[in-house]
Amino acid sequence: MIDQQQLIIKMNLDAWNTQITKADKLFNSLSDEQLQEQVAPGRNSGIYLLGHLTAVHDALFPLLGLGEKLYPQLEDIFIKNPDKSGIEKPLTKDLRNYWSEVNNKLSQHFNQFNIDEWFQKHTSVSDEDFEKEPHRNKLNVLLSRTNHLVYHLGQLAFLKK
Amino acid sequence: MIDQQQLIIKMNLDAWNTQITKADKLFNSLSDEQLQEQVAPGRNSGIYLLGHLTAVHDALFPLLGLGEKLYPQLEDIFIKNPDKSGIEKPLTKDLRNYWSEVNNKLSQHFNQFNIDEWFQKHTSVSDEDFEKEPHRNKLNVLLSRTNHLVYHLGQLAFLKK
Repeated sequence: MIDQQQLIIKMNLDAWNTQITKADKLFNSLSDEQLQEQVAPGRNSGIYLLGHLTAVHDALFPLLGLGEKLYPQLEDIFIKNPDKSGIEKPLTKDLRNYWSEVNNKLSQHFNQFNIDEWFQKHTSVSDEDFEKEPHRNKLNVLLSRTNHLVYHLGQLAFLKK
Repeated sequence: MIDQQQLIIKMNLDAWNTQITKADKLFNSLSDEQLQEQVAPGRNSGIYLLGHLTAVHDALFPLLGLGEKLYPQLEDIFIKNPDKSGIEKPLTKDLRNYWSEVNNKLSQHFNQFNIDEWFQKHTSVSDEDFEKEPHRNKLNVLLSRTNHLVYHLGQLAFLKK
């Protein structure tokens, strides 16, 4: 029985890792100039989506009880405000590094999680609610963020010529 | 222990259902004329992606051992060939119905699966390979198709004004 649980957690973690690898390849294949472009007319720029994904992944540290965000300044620029807020964005080369660093550090944590940790509640659900809704656990956060990443990857793919 | 397995399967199935519901809402919010448009300049049309997603989901019946495809004619038009193949496409209103029917019928099957069925091999992996790679099971197909759907949903969202 333990085997099936390990297997299913591996499947969900593999799905996350596969999409992170696809995103890495895509970002590496795009020049800084290409990232400045909008993914479609009137839509978000590549650089905004890179920052947005980095900020959302960075928020996983506190949400999963893994410590503080590495780059808390990204939330205001890339989550709370839209692309054309007029707020100055970090340099593209710095954002590329933030993206890698956040995901590498998350990966180190994920590889050390045991099965029970994945079933623990995340930090934004109360003990009472978690008792009624045990699916609001850390693994579900991973599943949800995988889908969030894939959604924007479908859009970022349009930056490739 | 059984509880955790049921929980994790529910989480993965919920993720699929959530995205199907989002897709339904999106398709219902778009007129036939909007679906004719490309999601971005030079990219697939909404109608092609609707047909593509329907064909890919229809292929889940044989892949998961649930019977024959409902609309086998879609594979040639929407999987084997690109949008501008020149092959005549079904009427948009018919495609909308195919989409609903395929997903409704899949959903009926999924709701009846027990835990062990999700861990069974899908039909395109051999017994020998499955012994070495037990993650190539039916649940992993669901996970993979959820991500496929989300990827294209990120693109289809651009049809909304």
